[in-house]
Amino acid sequence: MDSARLWEGHRRRLEAYLQGLVFSEDPRLKRLVEAMRYSMLAGGKRVRPTICMESARVFGADPAHVLPSAAAVELIHTYSLIHDDLPAMDDDDFRRGRPTCHKVFGEALAILAGDAFFGEALTLITVHQDGTPEQILEVVRELADSTGVNGMVGGQVMDMMYTGTGGGDPETLHMIHAFKTGALIKSSARIGAILAGASVEEQENISEYARELGFCFQIVDDILNATSTTERLGKSAGSDAEQGKVTFVGVYGLDGARRAADESLARAVEALRRIEGDTAGLEQLALFVRHREH
Amino acid sequence: MDSARLWEGHRRRLEAYLQGLVFSEDPRLKRLVEAMRYSMLAGGKRVRPTICMESARVFGADPAHVLPSAAAVELIHTYSLIHDDLPAMDDDDFRRGRPTCHKVFGEALAILAGDAFFGEALTLITVHQDGTPEQILEVVRELADSTGVNGMVGGQVMDMMYTGTGGGDPETLHMIHAFKTGALIKSSARIGAILAGASVEEQENISEYARELGFCFQIVDDILNATSTTERLGKSAGSDAEQGKVTFVGVYGLDGARRAADESLARAVEALRRIEGDTAGLEQLALFVRHREH
Repeated sequence: MDSARLWEGHRRRLEAYLQGLVFSEDPRLKRLVEAMRYSMLAGGKRVRPTICMESARVFGADPAHVLPSAAAVELIHTYSLIHDDLPAMDDDDFRRGRPTCHKVFGEALAILAGDAFFGEALTLITVHQDGTPEQILEVVRELADSTGVNGMVGGQVMDMMYTGTGGGDPETLHMIHAFKTGALIKSSARIGAILAGASVEEQENISEYARELGFCFQIVDDILNATSTTERLGKSAGSDAEQGKVTFVGVYGLDGARRAADESLARAVEALRRIEGDTAGLEQLALFVRHREH
Repeated sequence: MDSARLWEGHRRRLEAYLQGLVFSEDPRLKRLVEAMRYSMLAGGKRVRPTICMESARVFGADPAHVLPSAAAVELIHTYSLIHDDLPAMDDDDFRRGRPTCHKVFGEALAILAGDAFFGEALTLITVHQDGTPEQILEVVRELADSTGVNGMVGGQVMDMMYTGTGGGDPETLHMIHAFKTGALIKSSARIGAILAGASVEEQENISEYARELGFCFQIVDDILNATSTTERLGKSAGSDAEQGKVTFVGVYGLDGARRAADESLARAVEALRRIEGDTAGLEQLALFVRHREH
């Protein structure tokens, strides 16, 4: 099967799984569920869950086996987007081509929809994911690592803190993105590997791939924010410079950022070479991440 | 040992444990850590963690054994308080006798401090809590149950939704509080029991106790909000009526609410009678919850 069809297959399965998540049938919670489903089903690239599924496949499991955990990762990612878009944070009006959650449902419900995703993600993993207790626990530990002070949240805090200061050394820039986006992408790949029963060494190799993929993803995000249009991106273009964010383009310049993206891509592909099994799909993903236009 | 000293002992151990939680030493995350510690170390009654520790003791474990999980429950409770106090939600300026987190650190950092607590709570449980993988997984499942759409978050949504509508039937009132405060209190008791190796039947008995204790706690909260002063409560008195919240006092009147609190207390004590072992401490807690003045 060629790589494009492989990814399309993962994606279709994931969308169907997410469609089936209803959370509650109680009419009193209808509005909350609507807010959650609005954000969860807004499309998006689904990079994290599909990487989780493909990682499982590379290490010999059926990608469908890890669907609950793959969906959980996407719920957590969705929660972070909802909160990052809030007026008190990045104050973004558009996301994935549609008005942001708080624009449609109000701030209170947006905060709460984000909060609810965390508990629901844990339910998917601890109730619906098959695996040994050790494996499931390892999956939860991955999410714990990537969502706390030394993960997603810490990254967002640093991102905000350095915004508008005109500062931003390369070390801080790398730390922001390793925490903010890298941690969850890495966890996604590791979770697929863990649930497929991959060895610790295999987990390390896929981690390195995912780490570099995460950097590449962010560098390209920064490049696109600086060079693309709002229409094409489905979110506000040019907002990084406007807000004075610390970005790869800001620190290294446009050419420097492009070089850095190429280097991350090369290192990601190199890590794949050390993995036995069919890594063509993961390699194609890395190329897609580098060369995507939105 | 008398009950008062027992609870004081749990509390002192917990405070010392929380004091030791630093989350990060990185200067770039100092402000986030400050916001988290400001809220986490603001005192408070510590009902949830101490009930978790006492539940463990009743079923034969050393209370110190469950400290990481007890602390995790308190972190999650703290996160819910921070978010509930936000301007977009209950818009409260005072909590536990001090300015609320967003008043001191700003809205963005308050949202993020809340978010970070969830990941950190999971780390405490999955990295620092001793127990079999099955037990730890059961603990995570408890938290998943009590923090999602059908737990804390759903309760807060319903609470907000009915605020100011003048409505609020008894069924909705009970559902709001079973979700909003009851779920996590029940989980706290269950987690202590699970980690002590209690049987399913024992877990059920302690659940029933905790469920009634949770109701009693909330009813008394509503009574105090209607009858006490801001100075004594350490949070805004009279705010429920001002905002048109659905409360036990609103639905049943002050006398009716007092009767309901007494009935919950009686049912809680009855559930304890079915538990073998020294439940005098838990009984005293129920009495304290019923008769507290702040």
